[in-house]
Amino acid sequence: MHILIIGAAGMVGRKLTDRLVASGLDGKAVEKLTLVDVVPPAAPTGFKGKAETLTADLSQPGASEKLVAGRPDVIFHLAAIVSGEAEADFDKGYRINLDGTRFLFEAIRQEGLRAAYKPRVVFTSSIAVFGAPFGDKIEDTFLSAPLTSYGTQKAIGELLLSDYSRKGFFDGIGIRLPTICIRPGKPNKAASGFFSNILREPLSGQEAVLPVAENVRHWHASPRAAVGFLLHAATLDLEKVGARRNLSLPGLSATVGEQIEALRRVAGEKAVKLIRREPDAVIQKIVAGWPSDFNPARAIALGFRAESSFDDIIRVHIEDELGGKIG
Amino acid sequence: MHILIIGAAGMVGRKLTDRLVASGLDGKAVEKLTLVDVVPPAAPTGFKGKAETLTADLSQPGASEKLVAGRPDVIFHLAAIVSGEAEADFDKGYRINLDGTRFLFEAIRQEGLRAAYKPRVVFTSSIAVFGAPFGDKIEDTFLSAPLTSYGTQKAIGELLLSDYSRKGFFDGIGIRLPTICIRPGKPNKAASGFFSNILREPLSGQEAVLPVAENVRHWHASPRAAVGFLLHAATLDLEKVGARRNLSLPGLSATVGEQIEALRRVAGEKAVKLIRREPDAVIQKIVAGWPSDFNPARAIALGFRAESSFDDIIRVHIEDELGGKIG
Repeated sequence: MHILIIGAAGMVGRKLTDRLVASGLDGKAVEKLTLVDVVPPAAPTGFKGKAETLTADLSQPGASEKLVAGRPDVIFHLAAIVSGEAEADFDKGYRINLDGTRFLFEAIRQEGLRAAYKPRVVFTSSIAVFGAPFGDKIEDTFLSAPLTSYGTQKAIGELLLSDYSRKGFFDGIGIRLPTICIRPGKPNKAASGFFSNILREPLSGQEAVLPVAENVRHWHASPRAAVGFLLHAATLDLEKVGARRNLSLPGLSATVGEQIEALRRVAGEKAVKLIRREPDAVIQKIVAGWPSDFNPARAIALGFRAESSFDDIIRVHIEDELGGKIG
Repeated sequence: MHILIIGAAGMVGRKLTDRLVASGLDGKAVEKLTLVDVVPPAAPTGFKGKAETLTADLSQPGASEKLVAGRPDVIFHLAAIVSGEAEADFDKGYRINLDGTRFLFEAIRQEGLRAAYKPRVVFTSSIAVFGAPFGDKIEDTFLSAPLTSYGTQKAIGELLLSDYSRKGFFDGIGIRLPTICIRPGKPNKAASGFFSNILREPLSGQEAVLPVAENVRHWHASPRAAVGFLLHAATLDLEKVGARRNLSLPGLSATVGEQIEALRRVAGEKAVKLIRREPDAVIQKIVAGWPSDFNPARAIALGFRAESSFDDIIRVHIEDELGGKIG
């Protein structure tokens, strides 16, 4: 099996690569891995098959054609510029997130017109396709009315994915990942960063800033769950999914206060004391427009699984990032 | 006021032109009308202002820039290739319905980057943005999950319109027209054609074919109502519409049997006898995937109005198309 990962240098792409190298896909060995990103992806370590690492920008004419010419069986399309950048640079957001995705889909179609070819395409969408006002929980039949250019571009990608799949050009599935928590690495300036920072930093003995109130509710899944979603999406029987190829995935709806209580249970009062309250009106306003809870009935029925407690989300981080130890 | 109508040669475009010439827009005279289509639009008759008729294909680079350079105050974007053609010719559908729309929106943005410019843009979307399964009535918060390329292209146009409006590049509003009934002219091969044919032809003493059962339910508004929707959309206070710029419009949900009963009331048994039952499995299957009823609460609250009985829809046709007389 030949697997192509576009956006392989990102956090999720790296974890997905590691998992495919360690465990294959659905019990089948991976013979070839093609890893692509705008910056050079690291070569997979310990991989017995053939690995290729490439830099490419999907928004450039011809870039997708080259990737697709290798006829990968599964294509993970994780590449995107993030919400903040897409909002600040309108042209770049549409070029990378919309044109890049459309060029990829079209390159697959053109490859299939030359000779039969119908790969599985797993597209990471986002809960940013939804914009307030919401009901209590976002149902599977709730409209996409994004309030950012990023969310708009992802929603358009979803529509294209469904139509190309319906026409039989590929077997596509779009998955709307919850906010990834605990995101490993250093604190970043993403408006959502604090959801991870307030857990990750104290777990390593560092101070973290909380810019919102404890009653702010949000929708989370661990990096390990995200990789599980991708693998499940790559192997799922799409007949069961039907025409609506884009799914809100399971996650854990929790308030910041509930996050902090879980931190207290897992790492003690000492860790909790490292969270410094520093209210930030700008971040509060952004976060108020975000989805906070879902009823992802379809994805659950299709076998997607996420954590069911924040204690578990914290433990995943301790196991996967901290070698099992709290710093 | 300068008004640009793109898609001016179509049935709705011609009726809109006539209405603007006769009554202006919201009590204000129209000083300039620019009428554009891929075929030459007819020059407006009896118009006191300046009229320009042009042929242009929005999907061609530079075409939109030329239209927008005239800085129209209101732009009606009615141009599209229809559902059947977009389904049969994938490339053409995306080129005209997606690229054409995106080029137009982008040309407006670029014009505004040169010097402040923020026209009203009225985009005709379609109930084809919805795909089965539906609930009893399609609510304003129901997802767009189209089952055709045409519906996909319209749904993408809606998303772009909302995002360009949110960013302040223009004042956009997208309106999902019900199926227009009674469509004037000759019977055509559109799968939806019979909804009009079974009324229009008998009203003129001609036979018509009914390919589906009488319990088939669908969503209708007259051509006169459609023009009313466009004029209202062009003048409505968009502050009241908020971020969700695309609206399902009011219409009349009726079964074919109810259509026929209305025909009987208005034109008698003689007209009804001209309907010949000729079941067509292909058309039955297509129609089964279409929306049949809506709860367009937002559009109604915003003042959009349609007919409330099929007798009225038939009377509108008799008045507007038959000079008040049944043939």
